[in-house]
Amino acid sequence: LLTCPHAFFQGILERLDAGEIVIGDGGFVLALEKRGYVKAGPWTPEATVEHPEAVRQLHREFLRAGSSVLQTFTFYASEDKLENRGNYVAEKITCNKVNEAACDIAREVANEGDALVAGGVSQTPSYLSCKDKTEVKAVFQKQLDIFVKKNVDFLIAEYFEHVEEAVWAVEVLKESGKPVAATMCIGPEGDMHGVSPGQCAVQLVKAGASIVGVNCHFDPETCLETVRLMKEGLQAAKLKAHLMCQPLAFHTPDCGKQGFIDLPEFPFALEPRIASRWDIQKYARKAYDLGIRYIGGCCGFEPYHIRAIAEELAPERGFLPEASEKHGSWGDNLSMHTKPWVRARARKEYWENLKPASGRPYCPSMSKPDGWGVTKGTKELMQQKEATTEQQLKELFQKKKF
Amino acid sequence: LLTCPHAFFQGILERLDAGEIVIGDGGFVLALEKRGYVKAGPWTPEATVEHPEAVRQLHREFLRAGSSVLQTFTFYASEDKLENRGNYVAEKITCNKVNEAACDIAREVANEGDALVAGGVSQTPSYLSCKDKTEVKAVFQKQLDIFVKKNVDFLIAEYFEHVEEAVWAVEVLKESGKPVAATMCIGPEGDMHGVSPGQCAVQLVKAGASIVGVNCHFDPETCLETVRLMKEGLQAAKLKAHLMCQPLAFHTPDCGKQGFIDLPEFPFALEPRIASRWDIQKYARKAYDLGIRYIGGCCGFEPYHIRAIAEELAPERGFLPEASEKHGSWGDNLSMHTKPWVRARARKEYWENLKPASGRPYCPSMSKPDGWGVTKGTKELMQQKEATTEQQLKELFQKKKF
Amino acid sequence: LLTCPHAFFQGILERLDAGEIVIGDGGFVLALEKRGYVKAGPWTPEATVEHPEAVRQLHREFLRAGSSVLQTFTFYASEDKLENRGNYVAEKITCNKVNEAACDIAREVANEGDALVAGGVSQTPSYLSCKDKTEVKAVFQKQLDIFVKKNVDFLIAEYFEHVEEAVWAVEVLKESGKPVAATMCIGPEGDMHGVSPGQCAVQLVKAGASIVGVNCHFDPETCLETVRLMKEGLQAAKLKAHLMCQPLAFHTPDCGKQGFIDLPEFPFALEPRIASRWDIQKYARKAYDLGIRYIGGCCGFEPYHIRAIAEELAPERGFLPEASEKHGSWGDNLSMHTKPWVRARARKEYWENLKPASGRPYCPSMSKPDGWGVTKGTKELMQQKEATTEQQLKELFQKKKF
Amino acid sequence: LLTCPHAFFQGILERLDAGEIVIGDGGFVLALEKRGYVKAGPWTPEATVEHPEAVRQLHREFLRAGSSVLQTFTFYASEDKLENRGNYVAEKITCNKVNEAACDIAREVANEGDALVAGGVSQTPSYLSCKDKTEVKAVFQKQLDIFVKKNVDFLIAEYFEHVEEAVWAVEVLKESGKPVAATMCIGPEGDMHGVSPGQCAVQLVKAGASIVGVNCHFDPETCLETVRLMKEGLQAAKLKAHLMCQPLAFHTPDCGKQGFIDLPEFPFALEPRIASRWDIQKYARKAYDLGIRYIGGCCGFEPYHIRAIAEELAPERGFLPEASEKHGSWGDNLSMHTKPWVRARARKEYWENLKPASGRPYCPSMSKPDGWGVTKGTKELMQQKEATTEQQLKELFQKKKF
Repeated sequence: LLTCPHAFFQGILERLDAGEIVIGDGGFVLALEKRGYVKAGPWTPEATVEHPEAVRQLHREFLRAGSSVLQTFTFYASEDKLENRGNYVAEKITCNKVNEAACDIAREVANEGDALVAGGVSQTPSYLSCKDKTEVKAVFQKQLDIFVKKNVDFLIAEYFEHVEEAVWAVEVLKESGKPVAATMCIGPEGDMHGVSPGQCAVQLVKAGASIVGVNCHFDPETCLETVRLMKEGLQAAKLKAHLMCQPLAFHTPDCGKQGFIDLPEFPFALEPRIASRWDIQKYARKAYDLGIRYIGGCCGFEPYHIRAIAEELAPERGFLPEASEKHGSWGDNLSMHTKPWVRARARKEYWENLKPASGRPYCPSMSKPDGWGVTKGTKELMQQKEATTEQQLKELFQKKKF
Repeated sequence: LLTCPHAFFQGILERLDAGEIVIGDGGFVLALEKRGYVKAGPWTPEATVEHPEAVRQLHREFLRAGSSVLQTFTFYASEDKLENRGNYVAEKITCNKVNEAACDIAREVANEGDALVAGGVSQTPSYLSCKDKTEVKAVFQKQLDIFVKKNVDFLIAEYFEHVEEAVWAVEVLKESGKPVAATMCIGPEGDMHGVSPGQCAVQLVKAGASIVGVNCHFDPETCLETVRLMKEGLQAAKLKAHLMCQPLAFHTPDCGKQGFIDLPEFPFALEPRIASRWDIQKYARKAYDLGIRYIGGCCGFEPYHIRAIAEELAPERGFLPEASEKHGSWGDNLSMHTKPWVRARARKEYWENLKPASGRPYCPSMSKPDGWGVTKGTKELMQQKEATTEQQLKELFQKKKF
Repeated sequence: LLTCPHAFFQGILERLDAGEIVIGDGGFVLALEKRGYVKAGPWTPEATVEHPEAVRQLHREFLRAGSSVLQTFTFYASEDKLENRGNYVAEKITCNKVNEAACDIAREVANEGDALVAGGVSQTPSYLSCKDKTEVKAVFQKQLDIFVKKNVDFLIAEYFEHVEEAVWAVEVLKESGKPVAATMCIGPEGDMHGVSPGQCAVQLVKAGASIVGVNCHFDPETCLETVRLMKEGLQAAKLKAHLMCQPLAFHTPDCGKQGFIDLPEFPFALEPRIASRWDIQKYARKAYDLGIRYIGGCCGFEPYHIRAIAEELAPERGFLPEASEKHGSWGDNLSMHTKPWVRARARKEYWENLKPASGRPYCPSMSKPDGWGVTKGTKELMQQKEATTEQQLKELFQKKKF
Repeated sequence: LLTCPHAFFQGILERLDAGEIVIGDGGFVLALEKRGYVKAGPWTPEATVEHPEAVRQLHREFLRAGSSVLQTFTFYASEDKLENRGNYVAEKITCNKVNEAACDIAREVANEGDALVAGGVSQTPSYLSCKDKTEVKAVFQKQLDIFVKKNVDFLIAEYFEHVEEAVWAVEVLKESGKPVAATMCIGPEGDMHGVSPGQCAVQLVKAGASIVGVNCHFDPETCLETVRLMKEGLQAAKLKAHLMCQPLAFHTPDCGKQGFIDLPEFPFALEPRIASRWDIQKYARKAYDLGIRYIGGCCGFEPYHIRAIAEELAPERGFLPEASEKHGSWGDNLSMHTKPWVRARARKEYWENLKPASGRPYCPSMSKPDGWGVTKGTKELMQQKEATTEQQLKELFQKKKF
């Protein structure tokens, strides 16, 4: 059961078309922030140049955990984003170097197993500040040139809040002739301009994406609901595409349209929301039942969460990941524990039904999301900026007065 | 502020005697379990031989985060424990090899910075099953031989539930002539035979430990209270020793005498209990104020938790750890965020006062600990083992009938 | 400020048409169940005959608290319901006697102040079991005859889950020539046959109701949202009616379409959900801002909750209720407390912002509602009734096999 | 089973000496505050004169619920307390009138059943401000004169934070020749001067109390632990007395030495802490098992809580209270509900094991108690009073500068 069944190399679409389950990897920026290699706030991936050993090790852990795809660590690695954060990116850490190193490291580790390498682009500051299609596309093109040069196996446009920009990204990536996947960081309410998930999916497929879905911003349950709406949209439009889901490994039943960024706990106090491996097994099963075949994770997903997907779907896939050597199904290694009541935990029913306590009796179980007009933060900003109305504050913000 | 002040090598006692703050590292078994290299249940460290790159990377992350000491990954690496789990330890992964590899890896990484290497021993199955002093001491001696051969800088006897066994360990380690630290995994109620924390501390110092305290099993607050009781015991006995604290990074206000093992969430659903970096900064400050100068962590401590200790105590130490390059004090990198209400989080008062939500409204905030006579688990065992009373069940257990 | 402004008697519509705020009363069945006079389950009002002093005292407390209307305690007092529960209603406690006594007691207390008496009918077992319009209407007619004989001031058809039956009730009541109010126990999802709140309101007004809204089943926030949808429906249909809201005084963010009945805590463990007086003040303000002018309560509302409505809206009404003699605004009587930190609670900001703790760390903050197909209860029933599918179980239920 | 077994009148000590279970009543001040007749803050009982019908009805409900004793509503009815609050006590509402009316109402209702009337005194402002034994005793004597004149059946000295004052009260009451019970509002940490519960009990018995225990300030579990310590103290001193317990019907696991007064929710947001009837049944059973035979309640206890005591102990007592006519054991009236899943709740196991949700996901489950030196309230007071240290603030407070 431990050997991967690929006798020879197959591409992402061949795998999905054959009905295979493709397992994604987890979120690099949050994992490497905790390991000490990424700055929260900018979230840029200069670690590929500065600390390749750390990036390599994390790829390796996801590979062992069962990832079929290793995404290049190129999140927010567009030139405009890196320059935007230029104050700390040394001259020699250029956009090209960051992207090239990311490709090299991913390929090196992918070759240790049977994984595919996916080059990834994400939303850009250019889109938000100028909205000129040519300029935004040039930013994506620059990253794509590296991906083509390094010959990644396929491409992912991910973490887009506006379908317009996502479509532009897909159009650029599509030029390479490689398969393109596209995921948006939206919930059931749709993109920031009010385009519904179904409509987003339709536009992305029409632009050339073979795989569509969501990533980041929401918990597994919310992401699955969004992908379900995308699936309905595609069916109504009689379009075909593979479905993909890479949610947070955080519980976020309380977040608003813009996702976990607006939760007061983001990004430094999300700990009590972290999903357990059992939560992720439930997610994997539900994703499978919904017809999703590219199942991975985003922020909060650590290697053991990916392993949980691989273990839950092992019956369907016919094999376990390497790291399952170190993990008994449903905790059965606990049957070797010295205390009988701990041994009694070595079973599925126990973990499936456990309602884990937070150990934080002075804390609530849900938060009100932050945002314009609702928060103490906004009130304080109004005082500070001498704005008497929220509208004035928004105008100051748009004029970049703060 | 980023350069470490040691012009030349100094030992652990020189550092502590000079009033320096020594920062420990975090818990390897839980961190490496999540990364896919350690089995929950056995918790043995054969990864030092099987996957040295993973162990090396974790050491490196703790070093970057500010650890002054790297502990050899030799937890539960006594011969009796490894054999006990022999069904999965291949023949060539001998006790000696595991311990030697652990020393080599720790030293290699320590030399990348200015850290000390500490060889560690922990409680043994031998003690629990036979209680013969000579035999138990022989187990420790075997590990010590490796530590001496590999010339570690000092020794730690940690994770002892019975002070008797801890004293035996200290007596063995003391023979090497190297400084010895000793920490027990007990709470304010004392050891499993009812010896109070104060008495435990007195016995350990009399046996030769220069540094005493606690590690594992309880959250920071409970551990600090236990060390406070140890300090009182030493003062009453007019003994001098340095104090040390390496707690869990989990909130466990609800656990009983035997600590987090008995919580229903142990070990696979502890996520909602994980401490935030701000919780750890509070712990570091309180530990310092209590006179503790060896401040580290145990299970649940990831590199960013150790960095939180180093950042909180940077004013006292005069320098920041390397990984602080990637971390602004109290989240100040967030001041570069695009959303004003997220930027408003870039300040101490925000994070200090936040009560983080669990995102789990269907879960409680505390659990009842498991254990003899109180649990559903026990009731089920009674049925299964056909015991009509709990006493019968205990007897069957002691006769090793299950 | 303590004198009520009515120089002479005015009817409900004159008051509402003049823009006056009418304050309802609270829930009798739950309040009198706790006082020992009503059976949970049947919830019938035979106490009007058995223990008139208890009913009278509760009316009096609501009057003192500020109720402008006293509803006759005739909930579930239709003949079919009382017979249904006949096993415990003694022969002499006939439907007529229960309804007559209810009218007498309400009028007696109303005359102690300036309150109106409203005769109330609610949904019937007849509707659920036979659905014959004539038969159901006859049931309402029988109660109406008493209300006419006793000359109540106006009529309320309340607690209807199906708009069809509510319309029948309004048609019957309308015949009396007295003003009719109609409230359904539905949420934003609409009635049990899927009729939207907006459509329900339209049908009720067309049937002759001058006042429409909701009562019971949901918490204030949910009820306000439902009334908002009713208002929208009326506006779209260009119909005019006064709006009315009488919600639960329980927090029920977690209930499904059928309201709090399905919550596992109903009816004997709802305590932790009880609203504070401050919660009710917020509700009163929001109701007023939404244009609702008949503002009261249902199950869970005790006299002090009604007083909270009257105090919140005292600036608009120009007077306080009698019971406010015993209650300072926002707790200002606490300023006489001996402890300074308790005195510091005597202010609006304190109570408005307090997030009250449950004192129950072993309990969750939300529950999953019970119901067909989702619950342990259903599973147990299936075993007990030897039904292998839920469908079989439902059929057995419909055939009255249990 | 519904007839009370007393063929003729028996006193409190005869009943207890015969091994009978005596059931107390519940808390009047909080119940009548909610009904609109008592001011929170002062908590004085002028309602006995102003609204006797409301006091009478509450007594009647407790009698129906199973109370064997009706306490005169004379809490805080000492002359010094009433004068202290004189601004709102009209001239004609004298101390004597309040106490006399309380006795008359209690006796009137007691005669409707088989209950005893107990005259009660509680701690005085005189003790706190002057500590002169003669003066304080005179205050108690004035109330006692009324109790003797009205011939109550026995006397209770309750709600004392200092055992010294409680002893003075017992000494005064004892002079009447009537049996005396004495309960303190302390927890396991003892009285405000640090006297342990065991020592308090010993002093009270030596002063002449035949029944000792605790009332108010803490939840049932904490109160039971305190009475257990009293029992141990009496046993150690070889003294005999009956034990009594009248706790809060609020969950207060988080309160400090001074009880629920210091919780931030006191007194206007305690709702989520209210005990269910099942919580009270557990308390009644535990109290019985501990050997307590006078079992009642204090603040928060409504009639249905007292009924829960009477129902839990019906097997031992041999009869049910009158109000049980309206209450099936463990909710068995629900078996008549129309929904099968609600019917499935009609059983002991269901209610015993339910962990009721608060419906308040934005609230915590525990609070930090308020008090000197720990609270925001204190900090605000310091600013307001221009005190730079907490010590200064305390001095200002003692000098009555606020």
